[in-house]
Amino acid sequence: MADRAAVSGRTDARRRHDPEVRGFASDNYAGAHPEVLAALALANGGHQVAYGEDVYTENLQRVMRSHFGPYAQAFPVFNGTGANVTALQAMTDRWGAVICAASAHIHVDECGAPERVGGLKLLTVPTPDGKLTPDLIDREAHGWDDEHRAMPQVVSITQNTELGTVYTPDEIRAICDHAHARNMLVHLDGARIANAAASLDVPMRAFTNAVGVDVLSYGGTKNGMVFGESVVVLNPDAVRAMKHLRKMSMQLASKMRFISVQLEALLAKDLWLRNARHSNAMARRLADGVRAVGGVEILYPVQANAVFARLPHDVSVRLQERYRFYFWDEATGVVRWMCSFDTREEDVDGFVQALKEELAR
Amino acid sequence: MADRAAVSGRTDARRRHDPEVRGFASDNYAGAHPEVLAALALANGGHQVAYGEDVYTENLQRVMRSHFGPYAQAFPVFNGTGANVTALQAMTDRWGAVICAASAHIHVDECGAPERVGGLKLLTVPTPDGKLTPDLIDREAHGWDDEHRAMPQVVSITQNTELGTVYTPDEIRAICDHAHARNMLVHLDGARIANAAASLDVPMRAFTNAVGVDVLSYGGTKNGMVFGESVVVLNPDAVRAMKHLRKMSMQLASKMRFISVQLEALLAKDLWLRNARHSNAMARRLADGVRAVGGVEILYPVQANAVFARLPHDVSVRLQERYRFYFWDEATGVVRWMCSFDTREEDVDGFVQALKEELAR
Amino acid sequence: MADRAAVSGRTDARRRHDPEVRGFASDNYAGAHPEVLAALALANGGHQVAYGEDVYTENLQRVMRSHFGPYAQAFPVFNGTGANVTALQAMTDRWGAVICAASAHIHVDECGAPERVGGLKLLTVPTPDGKLTPDLIDREAHGWDDEHRAMPQVVSITQNTELGTVYTPDEIRAICDHAHARNMLVHLDGARIANAAASLDVPMRAFTNAVGVDVLSYGGTKNGMVFGESVVVLNPDAVRAMKHLRKMSMQLASKMRFISVQLEALLAKDLWLRNARHSNAMARRLADGVRAVGGVEILYPVQANAVFARLPHDVSVRLQERYRFYFWDEATGVVRWMCSFDTREEDVDGFVQALKEELAR
Amino acid sequence: MADRAAVSGRTDARRRHDPEVRGFASDNYAGAHPEVLAALALANGGHQVAYGEDVYTENLQRVMRSHFGPYAQAFPVFNGTGANVTALQAMTDRWGAVICAASAHIHVDECGAPERVGGLKLLTVPTPDGKLTPDLIDREAHGWDDEHRAMPQVVSITQNTELGTVYTPDEIRAICDHAHARNMLVHLDGARIANAAASLDVPMRAFTNAVGVDVLSYGGTKNGMVFGESVVVLNPDAVRAMKHLRKMSMQLASKMRFISVQLEALLAKDLWLRNARHSNAMARRLADGVRAVGGVEILYPVQANAVFARLPHDVSVRLQERYRFYFWDEATGVVRWMCSFDTREEDVDGFVQALKEELAR
Repeated sequence: MADRAAVSGRTDARRRHDPEVRGFASDNYAGAHPEVLAALALANGGHQVAYGEDVYTENLQRVMRSHFGPYAQAFPVFNGTGANVTALQAMTDRWGAVICAASAHIHVDECGAPERVGGLKLLTVPTPDGKLTPDLIDREAHGWDDEHRAMPQVVSITQNTELGTVYTPDEIRAICDHAHARNMLVHLDGARIANAAASLDVPMRAFTNAVGVDVLSYGGTKNGMVFGESVVVLNPDAVRAMKHLRKMSMQLASKMRFISVQLEALLAKDLWLRNARHSNAMARRLADGVRAVGGVEILYPVQANAVFARLPHDVSVRLQERYRFYFWDEATGVVRWMCSFDTREEDVDGFVQALKEELAR
Repeated sequence: MADRAAVSGRTDARRRHDPEVRGFASDNYAGAHPEVLAALALANGGHQVAYGEDVYTENLQRVMRSHFGPYAQAFPVFNGTGANVTALQAMTDRWGAVICAASAHIHVDECGAPERVGGLKLLTVPTPDGKLTPDLIDREAHGWDDEHRAMPQVVSITQNTELGTVYTPDEIRAICDHAHARNMLVHLDGARIANAAASLDVPMRAFTNAVGVDVLSYGGTKNGMVFGESVVVLNPDAVRAMKHLRKMSMQLASKMRFISVQLEALLAKDLWLRNARHSNAMARRLADGVRAVGGVEILYPVQANAVFARLPHDVSVRLQERYRFYFWDEATGVVRWMCSFDTREEDVDGFVQALKEELAR
Repeated sequence: MADRAAVSGRTDARRRHDPEVRGFASDNYAGAHPEVLAALALANGGHQVAYGEDVYTENLQRVMRSHFGPYAQAFPVFNGTGANVTALQAMTDRWGAVICAASAHIHVDECGAPERVGGLKLLTVPTPDGKLTPDLIDREAHGWDDEHRAMPQVVSITQNTELGTVYTPDEIRAICDHAHARNMLVHLDGARIANAAASLDVPMRAFTNAVGVDVLSYGGTKNGMVFGESVVVLNPDAVRAMKHLRKMSMQLASKMRFISVQLEALLAKDLWLRNARHSNAMARRLADGVRAVGGVEILYPVQANAVFARLPHDVSVRLQERYRFYFWDEATGVVRWMCSFDTREEDVDGFVQALKEELAR
Repeated sequence: MADRAAVSGRTDARRRHDPEVRGFASDNYAGAHPEVLAALALANGGHQVAYGEDVYTENLQRVMRSHFGPYAQAFPVFNGTGANVTALQAMTDRWGAVICAASAHIHVDECGAPERVGGLKLLTVPTPDGKLTPDLIDREAHGWDDEHRAMPQVVSITQNTELGTVYTPDEIRAICDHAHARNMLVHLDGARIANAAASLDVPMRAFTNAVGVDVLSYGGTKNGMVFGESVVVLNPDAVRAMKHLRKMSMQLASKMRFISVQLEALLAKDLWLRNARHSNAMARRLADGVRAVGGVEILYPVQANAVFARLPHDVSVRLQERYRFYFWDEATGVVRWMCSFDTREEDVDGFVQALKEELAR
């Protein structure tokens, strides 16, 4: 009977939305890529050991090693905050601190989860473009022997950054060398790592394990999954007790096969890259269109799938009635426009046209 | 292109397991019900507001109110530990304690997440069958004014219990009355709440909001979902800041529509009940079969989808080579056999036959 | 001017109590021993490096080594809860658990500080007399590889126990051997360690470092100090980052010389032992007197400075109007009578007489 | 016997330092004022209820009310970090955040205790002189409804600041009005509050309860106590469960009478002010002397007992061989010189002379 339901797609749930409507608010507003959904069906049926001892999670290790080298170990988790906080706990002692940009997601967008769940002290540094440098790190990289100070043990960077900028491999190598020389480890929040690789046109390893990153939060959700991310340990000496920490951080999925097979769907061949290239291209198209319109300042280099712009407040407000997007800093009139794997050229062109109309009013 | 993939089910992931193999280790070993998977496809496509402002989550409120009354509020989360720890934080102050059975999942199976994530002190009471009573609660329900003692603010019960036993509505009412008279709230861990309702043959409300339960962890995963549970607040006065607490507990799904629509698939009509009735029936069939074989002691009333049994250690070990299941207490020879929504009669009969053979060796 | 004040004892504070009134409520009700107070004056004046780099703290290391062997390291802290939680954090990982008696102070009397400050999961075992044994420990000493379970890493015992009983050195050795064989460490809460040594008539080392205890919470306050305790690390391999953990646990005294010199006053010669012997003797006198009166059940062996007794509830209530003491378990009529370093024979005799009178009413 | 010891000052401890040596490293390097020590002796002897129900703590409430108005409630604690973290927990929910200056002691000098013990998220703002303003607060005072952001619930300021500067009453009033208008509370870290009052020449209430401060960490140690501080709740509606929070934060002194009587010694008459005025005067004398020498830049207004100066690195190093003091920022050559209640004019003059000599080399 169940099988008949599977074939027919019968369910008591009902479609309640228009699948043709897309906006520019967030790459989390998109659904899942159909190939990812097909992977879920593939992994379904029969019994598999729960909590990660299934064959899909086993195979995921091979997939991750093909991208991140022979020492890579994947620990699938539910979401990005979970990946970051689990990873950072595994890399630090109870008395440790994490140096990060003041714009880092772990600082501004996780409701204090690093502090509250992990007891992690964040030492933040203002940056012009979301990117740390050795010099910026040094503002907080001191006092290891001083018991009055939380001990800096990890540098955490985001690639691509929350401001849509992308570190070059050499920039990350410089950070890793600098951190390692001071006995600190490097964590990379890769919520949009695929977009960074597509932007740089290099394999993901080129700016992670190849240049010294120790632990990675691999982002799957924004790249087209239903849900799911993975901590990827690149340097096994950099972590302890990942399994216990994932469980106690409430990130252990019972039916883990369903996260692992989605990651496989993205990473086994090139779906991850197709999705990332497409959303990057849509952001460039958007930026180009906006520049052609005039009257709008684009704030950072458009290197991935985000466009940050400054425009008159009333124009933004009117435009928001037609397309959903967020103010980044309402006081200064800055907005963020995100493209996704499912953004279409006509979505971009329609948005640019709408912007043009609202600017002209 | 993506649409063609959706139709064809194309994916770079590969099937790596035999969907005909089922065991008795855990109801988490099962996959998802096909009707649930179909619901995921239904909710896919187009953009929906992330983090719970989507139409599926909005509709889920109606669905939950149809089961749990007009005040019910659903807060979908990733997993059971997440539901429990988020709910218990919302019900307690920083100085609060939670009274629970010594066998409670929150005490023995969550790697200390309540303590570490929530700073929650658990006051545990040994029970004969996993069930608390007013008398048992009183062993820890005292000292509210004593600053040396963590303040008991919540009683947490599990329905059905971790030992496969089921509270009657009257038993839960007595607990709620007792707790409320002492200014304590009642949390119900309903990881298998559907099985309890099927066992009692009453609506779920009959042993939750109707008898005074304040907050519920609603279990979806074991009932046939890919992933996902929900805190269901039955008494809005019992909680504070659920949204902030869910986020900081790392349980906020960005693409929440995909949890909500699965819950809808279970709860809009009767899939939740069909699945639960079936797994309960399979457990009864298993218990009956085992009793007919003889030589095996069944330990608790088989009221839901679990059978606890004591049998010779070597028999268990040989049987485990043919069917996966766990020792509950290896020292005393106690094992746990779980049935699931996808357990088939022939699975049960084959298992009983295998048991018979191994006992006869 | 200040010097004249010192000589004259001038202060704007006023005496507000009768220094001749003593009860049996707690050894914390006593003040400080005059020799301890004199030590404070001795260490006063001039500048000393703050936070523990002073000469008194340096000398304390020598004093502690004379008692606890050449590896002992003292880390003075403010109070007993602070000593316990700092020590246990230093001995565990973030994912660790601590096995203790259900009657342990860390479980029942610290308002959840171990869980809330340290994220420590306590695994409690009921005991008949407050004393753990290898068999009792085994009830919770399992599942080290199971990520669902908080990992047992430390056994914590209290000497003498919260019930006034005293472990023999052999009993502690058996616990240490048992724990170490399972890769667990042993912590000893020595809030009344001096009383235990006086009771056993052995040096403190005989039941600590000599038999395998790894870390000790040394109790000074109940032994006659104004305030102050010390973590004493007996096995340096058992801890990490004590200094950072003490600071972040808010137990780092700026003017640490004043804790250290008090400990010196107790431990340099035999004040610690004189005080302990005296309070033990007073408890024995009290128990003997009570037994002679009849009508009162004494519950545990009176091995240190506590007497636990069961007597009619109304008698206790009337007696409490004359002498302050606490119910231990009001429901069962059990009370606790504590003797202190400053309890006098006439205090005991007067109390026994009062008890006799109230029993006779 | 004990009494004879008291009179004679007999103790087994030995004097190990020269009480005539004083430096400029920290006001924590000083010992206790003799009048404070005399108060300890006064409160000694006999039994007093432990944990704060003693007559000295009761009287302290009157003393504090005489300074801070009829609603003031004192909760003595051990140290400043303990006062701050206990107070901030009492003022916030689990999901709360605290806005403070980037130079605040709670951020830079407490080894992450606010985050680790209290789960508090700190939102820091760089300031030119250690002082927050409404405008600076607004950089972080937003997003109360956004669950992705830790909710700003408290503004914490330090008076006088860690940089030796002093807020005027009007400046604090503006901060309080601004915070209250946004439903935030105001905490004042008063580790050196007496110095601020002496500097402003106003009662302490003039810049605390009179202008809207809700909760105060009252600093006793640096003002001449052996140990001890006090949370002073000025607005009872601003806190919850202070007693439980103090205990679970490991700041509950068993023999609390000894903290309370020291605070009484300071505050009953004018010892607090005499000590503060003296140390402020010594800092002014030091600043004047240094200015007269020339070649040294004094960095902030010298409004309390601290002098921050920039001088050649080698001069500082040589000077440190003669007088103990700390670099504040070694990279830029900034040092901090602190005066204390026991600093003498000849200490200052000797130091200035030494500076002159080292500058001349």
